[in-house]
Amino acid sequence: MTIKLHFELQERPDNWRNNAVHAQSVYARIASAISKFEPVTVCASAAQWPNARSQLPKNIRLIEMSMNDSWFRDTGPTFVVRKNASNSGTSKPKVAGIDWNFNSWGGIDDGCYQDWSLDCLVARKILEIERIPRFPQSIVLEGGSIHVDGEGTCLTTEECLLNKNRNPHLNKGQIENELNAYLGVRKDGEAKLRLPGTRLAASYVNFYIANEAIILPQFGDQKWDDEAVRVVSLAFPNHEVVRIEGAREIVLAGGNIHCITQQQPAILEC
Amino acid sequence: MTIKLHFELQERPDNWRNNAVHAQSVYARIASAISKFEPVTVCASAAQWPNARSQLPKNIRLIEMSMNDSWFRDTGPTFVVRKNASNSGTSKPKVAGIDWNFNSWGGIDDGCYQDWSLDCLVARKILEIERIPRFPQSIVLEGGSIHVDGEGTCLTTEECLLNKNRNPHLNKGQIENELNAYLGVRKDGEAKLRLPGTRLAASYVNFYIANEAIILPQFGDQKWDDEAVRVVSLAFPNHEVVRIEGAREIVLAGGNIHCITQQQPAILEC
Repeated sequence: MTIKLHFELQERPDNWRNNAVHAQSVYARIASAISKFEPVTVCASAAQWPNARSQLPKNIRLIEMSMNDSWFRDTGPTFVVRKNASNSGTSKPKVAGIDWNFNSWGGIDDGCYQDWSLDCLVARKILEIERIPRFPQSIVLEGGSIHVDGEGTCLTTEECLLNKNRNPHLNKGQIENELNAYLGVRKDGEAKLRLPGTRLAASYVNFYIANEAIILPQFGDQKWDDEAVRVVSLAFPNHEVVRIEGAREIVLAGGNIHCITQQQPAILEC
Repeated sequence: MTIKLHFELQERPDNWRNNAVHAQSVYARIASAISKFEPVTVCASAAQWPNARSQLPKNIRLIEMSMNDSWFRDTGPTFVVRKNASNSGTSKPKVAGIDWNFNSWGGIDDGCYQDWSLDCLVARKILEIERIPRFPQSIVLEGGSIHVDGEGTCLTTEECLLNKNRNPHLNKGQIENELNAYLGVRKDGEAKLRLPGTRLAASYVNFYIANEAIILPQFGDQKWDDEAVRVVSLAFPNHEVVRIEGAREIVLAGGNIHCITQQQPAILEC
């Protein structure tokens, strides 16, 4: 399945050193690496659009998008696919996007910044551009706080979804019902918690799975960089592992390759 | 052929009364009217995006686009179609967009405003969003200064293209060569000038031709509004004429329905 990537070159001065010049360079290399395996879309603010265009290869699609910060994994839509859509008379799989609520990881009191009004519109804007149906959802949920395997299992963490600064009005059962309805996961699946509260920014597991490649962060430590490549290659024997040097630049702002990307299922044509 | 419309709700305070509230309402009615006949895309700045979304029907696609002013007819791409593309092994017609140069109708000395850097990017941004190939062109040419009939004829005016504040380095023959190459028009066609310098803002001819409808400005004079509907209905016997009341709001800024729209050929699927 062809998938696409969204990410932005961002401008939050409190979060990125030297006006994000170094981070932007890494972003451009990541986008370029992924574009060798699947179509890539990059988002940039109007002010950064010309700069981004100059740094990106021509085969990458650049669209204007205003954001408060740059974590598409958390603010972008969660794409869902209904594979057996044959009764509709078309062979195209049905793709839709869930537009979760977002509150900057904790709202006014605990959040990372005070105005996330632009981030709240990211998912909706992407879905409009892509002409993909939107499923609005009122639950506060960062896309990066859930992980599904496509076979009915959803991994998540109570630290995010059940936190009183996210969804104080919902209990565990109510949230599970919503995930079940929107993600098509089973309520009886065993919930495995990831380490609470961490975004695993400086971890090798913060990679992006492209169609036939793993886009893997490297941190400048030859021994462990090589070890990470070895382990990930074993885990994904049919994928080429592509190293992204200098990924520390993204760590500085609290995330990594997985956090700044969002895969999008292709709408296959007949 | 299905076509699409691009236009924006804009913010230039020197050009629109009451922060463009009245004009935006007319824009929304125009978009809504066209959307009954073909898919419509509206562009709005990030600041105006939520406002625009609230004024537009759900079936209209809204995308973020920063602009200096709102005349898509002049700043948007000129779409060209190659109908006989059968050798490429696909039945899809080839569509491309010409990205002309733009200098705010006259540049630093004679132009309408001093910074048109965002307007210069409009055509390119649209083409990236639509994944349509871009033909860059260095000639300064407003899309509204040319008119083609699809049969090799191009109407234009020397007042725009040959003006020293547009293309001082090019003579008539050189410009004709470029139009010939990019638009596929014949150099030997008879050039008919429209009234030089006027944008025909307050004229009934500033209408938009939708797939099966004419979206016609109305100016509040019952006698002449009716007469315009009668004449246009005779000229387009297979189109429904749709009246847009209150079009004076757009006249105030120097254009009308034709000026704020840009039709886009559909890419037909197999």
